[in-house]
Amino acid sequence: MNKKTPLLDTISSPADLKTKSIEELVEVADELRRETIDVVSTTGGHLGSALGVVELTVAIHKVFDTPDDKLVWDVGHQCYPHKILTERRAEIRTLRQGGGLSGFTKRSESEYDPFGAAHAGTSISAGAGFATARDLKDEDRNVVCVIGDGSMTAGMAYEAMNHMGGMHKRMIVILNDNDMSIAPPVGALSHYLSKTVSSKGYRQFRKAGKMMAKTVGLEKPAKKAEHYARDFALGGAMFDALGFYYVGPIDGHDLDTLIPVLENVRDMKNGPVLVHVVTEKGKGFEPAEKSADKYHGVSKFNVITGEQAKSKPNAPSYTNVFAQELIRLAKDDERIVGITAAMPSGTGMDKFGDAFPERMFDVGIAEQHGVTFAAAMAADGMKPFCAIYSTFLQRAYDSVVHDVAIQKLPVRFAIDRAGLVGADGATHAGSFDIGYLGALPDFVLMAASDEAELQRMVATAHAIDDCPSAFRFPRGEGIGIDLWERAEPLEIGKGRIVKEGTTIAILALGARLQEALHAADMLEAQGFSTTVADARFAKPLDTDLIERLAKEHEVLITVEEGARGGFGSFVLEHLAKVGALDNGLRIRPMTLPDVFQDQNKPELMYEDAGLSAKAIATQAIAALGRGDVAKLKLIVGGVVLS
Amino acid sequence: MNKKTPLLDTISSPADLKTKSIEELVEVADELRRETIDVVSTTGGHLGSALGVVELTVAIHKVFDTPDDKLVWDVGHQCYPHKILTERRAEIRTLRQGGGLSGFTKRSESEYDPFGAAHAGTSISAGAGFATARDLKDEDRNVVCVIGDGSMTAGMAYEAMNHMGGMHKRMIVILNDNDMSIAPPVGALSHYLSKTVSSKGYRQFRKAGKMMAKTVGLEKPAKKAEHYARDFALGGAMFDALGFYYVGPIDGHDLDTLIPVLENVRDMKNGPVLVHVVTEKGKGFEPAEKSADKYHGVSKFNVITGEQAKSKPNAPSYTNVFAQELIRLAKDDERIVGITAAMPSGTGMDKFGDAFPERMFDVGIAEQHGVTFAAAMAADGMKPFCAIYSTFLQRAYDSVVHDVAIQKLPVRFAIDRAGLVGADGATHAGSFDIGYLGALPDFVLMAASDEAELQRMVATAHAIDDCPSAFRFPRGEGIGIDLWERAEPLEIGKGRIVKEGTTIAILALGARLQEALHAADMLEAQGFSTTVADARFAKPLDTDLIERLAKEHEVLITVEEGARGGFGSFVLEHLAKVGALDNGLRIRPMTLPDVFQDQNKPELMYEDAGLSAKAIATQAIAALGRGDVAKLKLIVGGVVLS
Repeated sequence: MNKKTPLLDTISSPADLKTKSIEELVEVADELRRETIDVVSTTGGHLGSALGVVELTVAIHKVFDTPDDKLVWDVGHQCYPHKILTERRAEIRTLRQGGGLSGFTKRSESEYDPFGAAHAGTSISAGAGFATARDLKDEDRNVVCVIGDGSMTAGMAYEAMNHMGGMHKRMIVILNDNDMSIAPPVGALSHYLSKTVSSKGYRQFRKAGKMMAKTVGLEKPAKKAEHYARDFALGGAMFDALGFYYVGPIDGHDLDTLIPVLENVRDMKNGPVLVHVVTEKGKGFEPAEKSADKYHGVSKFNVITGEQAKSKPNAPSYTNVFAQELIRLAKDDERIVGITAAMPSGTGMDKFGDAFPERMFDVGIAEQHGVTFAAAMAADGMKPFCAIYSTFLQRAYDSVVHDVAIQKLPVRFAIDRAGLVGADGATHAGSFDIGYLGALPDFVLMAASDEAELQRMVATAHAIDDCPSAFRFPRGEGIGIDLWERAEPLEIGKGRIVKEGTTIAILALGARLQEALHAADMLEAQGFSTTVADARFAKPLDTDLIERLAKEHEVLITVEEGARGGFGSFVLEHLAKVGALDNGLRIRPMTLPDVFQDQNKPELMYEDAGLSAKAIATQAIAALGRGDVAKLKLIVGGVVLS
Repeated sequence: MNKKTPLLDTISSPADLKTKSIEELVEVADELRRETIDVVSTTGGHLGSALGVVELTVAIHKVFDTPDDKLVWDVGHQCYPHKILTERRAEIRTLRQGGGLSGFTKRSESEYDPFGAAHAGTSISAGAGFATARDLKDEDRNVVCVIGDGSMTAGMAYEAMNHMGGMHKRMIVILNDNDMSIAPPVGALSHYLSKTVSSKGYRQFRKAGKMMAKTVGLEKPAKKAEHYARDFALGGAMFDALGFYYVGPIDGHDLDTLIPVLENVRDMKNGPVLVHVVTEKGKGFEPAEKSADKYHGVSKFNVITGEQAKSKPNAPSYTNVFAQELIRLAKDDERIVGITAAMPSGTGMDKFGDAFPERMFDVGIAEQHGVTFAAAMAADGMKPFCAIYSTFLQRAYDSVVHDVAIQKLPVRFAIDRAGLVGADGATHAGSFDIGYLGALPDFVLMAASDEAELQRMVATAHAIDDCPSAFRFPRGEGIGIDLWERAEPLEIGKGRIVKEGTTIAILALGARLQEALHAADMLEAQGFSTTVADARFAKPLDTDLIERLAKEHEVLITVEEGARGGFGSFVLEHLAKVGALDNGLRIRPMTLPDVFQDQNKPELMYEDAGLSAKAIATQAIAALGRGDVAKLKLIVGGVVLS
């Protein structure tokens, strides 16, 4: 690898593509693919999706006048070739690193990214907004959205199509059909698209591709395109019904076809068009093509062998501990069912599905439906566990409120990726769930301080049969603590004292408990006897524990991996209501800061967030008004680290 | 009216319908319609939708074995005839009253309501859950969802169909197509359905209805139904694509057709079926049929004339004040656009649309899309105002976080129905927005204490061009204060002192300010000098004001029309962080209670919630430790009321 990229080197912005012949663009695409592979081999990231859209990216920037034309990539994780072509090649090797380029499209990064993304299914809505604003301002630019077939399962994609189809708004939606989102897709739409693609029409078209594209390019493009679409496509009825003019399916790796078709579609200027493009995820990199997940998300890898540099785990991941515990419980309770919204491997639901194929449901990128689906199963006596990342559960908030909480149905939420998540950055941070779930009546909300606690919380949620419950846990590895053979449920609303002291109390909710313990060591080194408690429950609160900590210590610090308005504020509200603040309490709630933090290594993000051991100890000393912040030393296992 | 209902009187449960002939059922339906009109004329409520489904309700309970078969009504506001038939006729005149029957389906009310509703678009997901649970338990019941064409614009309905179509799950979805949700529907789907209904096939079918239904009823129902569907329907391609077997369109008021078709569909037992039923909203009550909104939601009315007993307003509604202020601003700023999600009249967007038809967008029941659509318009230089009820904005939470807040786009949210809403009950309460929006970085969040303040907040949001903003306001009438000719924007993050005192401070966010002022009068009557302040901003906080109130008073009460984890907790967090609690502060946050409150008159709900003037004064006296709660008297305008 690391071959020369002579043609790509001549492209400093999309304008440079305009003068290139199709033959040259084929070479540009080839070099762009190699460059992408080379980049991701050093940075890690979303490789498979990027490789699938190399030719499409070249074709779009050839045919459309970006950034004046608005190009919106759905999810945005396939945008590495786009970033390379749009004046960001120089920084491309900082992708997903602290201070570097985002792994997604991002408005603040480039005018070529008119709308940022990272969650799936938003592109058509954004395109709709651009198309509508354009018309209101009487401008003439094109609006192009590129959306995968997986993202197309998201309800808001349909909402947007219904709206734009009804308005007959001029815009172009490119359906990038690779028959994969992260996992193989689910749902009727996928079958429908497959049927369309496997039809005789598409196969014939592939053969006749170049000829047809040329024919299409003749004098009456719209008319010709219509024939083309009608003759060569079996499908499209569904998009027709939504008011979109359907063109396709066409081969998304063949520039000889792609470019003239996009030129025609660009020149139609009449109502919304859907171009159905068929691509192969991982295209052009054999290890990716051969892998089950098409190298969706990879760590650094060897560009020859494709072997990924997986660091050896020190401890099982929280995700895996959750999955194993659920499998254990499900062996004895056939009412347990598992639900994931297109994230089977990310949530561990793939393993649950291997063990109980009939009881695992991947609903697609459809969190709202997934939660309400689970609610009805709970209403019918099943025990659903919805495994959804904190950030994605935001999409189902009304389903949680309206269908689960108001009906007091015992749906169990396994909230993965709680807190800061590292390279995926602000769009994927699990910051808000403590607040938005803790505000709901009759909700039990837990946070795991380590992987053994997580086991117990899975068991607790399983045992809670009269109201909703949720347990949150961070991304990544546990702390390496011994796991339970058979975890017992926790007593509802009861925390635990982990370390007894007298002067300072640190009450942690969730995995910052480890930092709280380190902070306690730092404080003890200066002679401040410190209690550390694990709240376990954000709701119901352990009010006895909280009042006791408040009463028996000079300082009370709360710590959580969540935004303001969460656990710390619940503690404050309780203490205020019972009058426990009346006579003074040096209480300091420590939460995530009130900013959206860019990507970085998780530990650095937490340091920036002011939630490290040192920050906790510093806060305690400041509150106490004694001690010496300058002398705080991080001590782990009796060893002074810093 | 008030005619006798001899046949209906013999129906004490759906089982009694089984033995009736179709001719008798036609009479039952007629009596049921009269009973429904009579009931709603005394209670008020959702009349039009209920009248549209009278025959459908009778047919479903005749053909299916409820409650063993699961019947899920989407939204649930059309369920009054269903309630009358399902053992709730005796209580039906308590509909929507305090302590009475809910205006929606409700699990806790009846086993005939297997899943509650009130927000649109959830029924297919719920049905999916029931159908899946049934198959896991190896049971054999039918699952029937009834969903309007308006609700079908909700993305989660599509998500659910895609999932169930892909699983080929046996369930029945009845699409109740009345070409209306609340307002005339928008979007491509509506055009598509209209085209289907206006086709020759449907018109022919109406004539040949009875004959066909009988033919369909012959030996091979599935086969025959297939012919029937293929021959007589133009449409269905879209539902086919989603894996549903499409039957229709059929006349939803003709029991001779409905019953045999539903029997056939019931007996198909093979994959999901969509039955497209055409009904007329308001059917059978001339004043409703003739009205533009088909008597969607009515107050008590005269059953002969249809005249509604509208109480004379004492002051303009908040909704109207918002609309007028926005119109005023939009006259001078053509970048202002308005967005509603299928609630043009509820949000005042109808008036904005009358004034600026090109700049008002009704996106359908599609809050997620609507918010992201608005975000892109903001990204392109427009000034979008999204007018969405607090409870419905929950559905767009991820769009608010991911598309608006993270990108710091100046979308303005006009949050109507903040706080408790009265007869619509818990599902419509606007309880959580202060917490779930206040947690977001770079968000300006305001709450109006009266209608003149609302004017200024509209102007403020208009002026905020570098970040998202929101202003919340209650349902119903303002307080009758003079309106601004030309409202000036507020200073961001600054509250105001409304009344100066020395001992007690009451800091209100939003329209409870009036109760706070009454509470102050009650407290002053006992000699406690009381400050009342209007916070105006939940974010950014007026930290100067808050710290001053804390420092200069013995007691600080915060009051808001929102759940825990909201304004009061933000105040507490701030005070804790700056050490203002270190030396003691008698602070009491007063929020909505941590329960879902059933419907009642709003003022009674607030009394139950503990947010009345008396409750505020009581809290202050308790916190102060002096004064006499028993002597608290409500004084308005110098007159002692209680």
